[in-house]
This record gives sequence, structure tokens and C-alpha cells, in this order.
Amino acid sequence: MSDISIIGTGNMARTIGARAIAGGNTVEIMGRDRSKAADLAKALGGGTTTGEWGAAPAGDIVILALLYDGVVPAVAQYGDALAGKVIVDISNPFNATFDGLVHREETSIAQEVAKVAPAGAGVVKAFNTIFRHVLEKGRPAVFLAGDDAQAKASVEVFVKSLGLRPLDVGGLKMAHWLEGAGVVTVGLANHGVGNLDFALSITELPV
Amino acid sequence: MSDISIIGTGNMARTIGARAIAGGNTVEIMGRDRSKAADLAKALGGGTTTGEWGAAPAGDIVILALLYDGVVPAVAQYGDALAGKVIVDISNPFNATFDGLVHREETSIAQEVAKVAPAGAGVVKAFNTIFRHVLEKGRPAVFLAGDDAQAKASVEVFVKSLGLRPLDVGGLKMAHWLEGAGVVTVGLANHGVGNLDFALSITELPV
Repeated sequence: MSDISIIGTGNMARTIGARAIAGGNTVEIMGRDRSKAADLAKALGGGTTTGEWGAAPAGDIVILALLYDGVVPAVAQYGDALAGKVIVDISNPFNATFDGLVHREETSIAQEVAKVAPAGAGVVKAFNTIFRHVLEKGRPAVFLAGDDAQAKASVEVFVKSLGLRPLDVGGLKMAHWLEGAGVVTVGLANHGVGNLDFALSITELPV
Repeated sequence: MSDISIIGTGNMARTIGARAIAGGNTVEIMGRDRSKAADLAKALGGGTTTGEWGAAPAGDIVILALLYDGVVPAVAQYGDALAGKVIVDISNPFNATFDGLVHREETSIAQEVAKVAPAGAGVVKAFNTIFRHVLEKGRPAVFLAGDDAQAKASVEVFVKSLGLRPLDVGGLKMAHWLEGAGVVTVGLANHGVGNLDFALSITELPV
């Protein structure tokens, strides 16, 4: 069982929150709009609480469920309130044509988060290769990357509580390639698969 | 049934050649060392022929089974001999630490091949996310990318002849992210999976 705080009140916050509750975790919702946070907490049930935007999260794991361009500013705004926390970035900074990333160099939102996060916080990239409705209805693999082994282990425990398989791809530098895997996933949806009802995964031998 | 020429005489040439023969395709092997090419052709059997390095390949589909740094030079050397061919790049230009690519900008070997390929050749990135022994023993998904729809369709027919599922991720620009998917695959082998007995794939709803 993990204590989770979700920063954000949108669809992804709702989906992760619902799965977290179902998996026996505690959930706190933090939104800029406190009434939206309260509405989502009520909808989620299971003892979900709300926290004040910018205050120290109740959870040990803080999931940033924001549009990609709001992620780094939110972490900067929270500042020392995130000290010692496990910060999970799930964002996809797609370009306008969905065949690349917005970065001007080889980085990722997760790596940029790490630059502004307080000392002692561990940043993990996770969940970004999964379409929301697949996370809601299916059992997709959860690819993750991070430099902080303890933070990554915490996220793996949380992922397993959701009934999902965590797949560690390595250090935080790999978050760039996980964001690229998000681009590949969208490419598959638009081409080889032709719909959104799938997730990137692995198949193991023997097959 | 497709007519395949493989440029290269190494392990990947052998593995793809063997699967191609088993799938009912014709295979030609082209090696700088003609005797190595002859040895491989003999080992593959099934009417495998050999061709002279740099001459016009017999096959409509030309698979570059070379180390990544030999791929663009080989295509440049073949030059007009590749006119009208479907050129398949399977390479992985990993950096020394296997957590990134060697490119100094956002490109791929496949895109660099397209720059030196003759007019009328269609370049497709494929097979690069698959460990050799998995291609030999398993039924991995084959991710592919390319701008030439006809070339991509030819490669899809070939992939299906191997009993494998082609997964089109989009235009040739996506080859960069498929090379990144190769980096993710190695990351999984070194971390979350811990062995080489798997391939990147997709799972579909309902699961």
C-alpha cells in the first residue's frame, strides 16, 4: 500500500486515482482549483482527500497529472514542499504533428523536472506510453526510468498494487527514449494498429 | 513470395536469410568477401545464390545486414545499383554506453541512407528492435517506418511471409524513434527484464 498524491484534476488524474484506490492505496488530489479537486476526490471515494496547491503533499509518491508544459512550472512552484518525495512524471511533450518531441535537445520532461526538484526528491518517468482508456480498462505494462533506485522501487510497488507489471528501462536519461516510445505508440495508433486499443509491451520467449 | 538480397554475411544475415528461406522467399547473399558469401549461401540452402559486392542485387528487397557504421557507406558504394530497390535498414547505432544513439542530431541511419540512396529507391527501417536470437527462435513483432508506401507494403508482405506481424509506425522520420525503441529494448534487457529473451511488442484490449 502506498500513499499517493496526484497533482491535477483532469482525466489522467481521475484514471490513475481510480486505479490507485482500487489497488488499496490512499489518494490525495491537489488542484489549482480546490473545488475541482474536491469534486474529483468525492467521485473517487475510498477516503480520497484533497490538498492545497503548493503545500506539502500527504503522499510519499507525487504523480504529476498535468499537461506537459505545466509539469516543470508546477514542480518549481511546489519547490521545497516536494523535498523527500518520489515525483512521477507521466507527460508526453509531443510536437504539433505527433511524430516527435518539443525538446530542442536530447532531454525529457522528467529530466527537466529533476533540474528544478528539491534535494532528496527522486524523479521517475512512468505511465507515459499508455493511453488513458487503456490504463482504465486494461493491464498495460508500465515502462519506467529513473536514477534514484529507492524512488524507482517505490513506484514499482505502486504499479504492482494496480495489478500492472513495471518494466524498468534504466536511468533518468532513458526518459528521453520513453518519451520517444510515446511517439512510437501514437505512430502505431495512426498507422499499423489503426486504433487506440493497445499499449506498448513486450513478448517473451518462448512464443 | 519475395526476392530478397542480403548485403552482409554475419549473424543477422544468416538469421534473416534462414527465416526468409523458410518463408518461401528467394535469397541472394552479397558480401565483400565472396567466399564468406558463398559459405553462407551454402549453409542457408534452399537455392540461395551469391552476388558480387556493389553489383545490382537480384532481389527487389535489399536488406542491409551490416554494422551501423558500414550501412551508409555501403549504400553510397552500391549507388545506382540500388535504383528502384526497396532498401531495408535494420541497424542500431547505439552509443558506447547503450543508453543513446551516436547521432549528433535527430536523425537515424535509415534517414541517412535515404540521403545517399539513388532515385526511385524506397528506404524502410525495420527489425532493429529484435535481438537476433529472438528473430531466430520467436515470433516478435516487426516495427517499421518509411515514407515510400509501396516499399513499406513490400516489406510488410515479406515480414508476413516469415510468420511475423508488421507494425507500421509511420514515415521515415519515425526511424529515429524506432532506433530509440532499440535503446529502450537494451535498457529493458539490462534492467527490468534482466535477460535477452523478449522483444518489444504491443498488447491489445481487451486484456
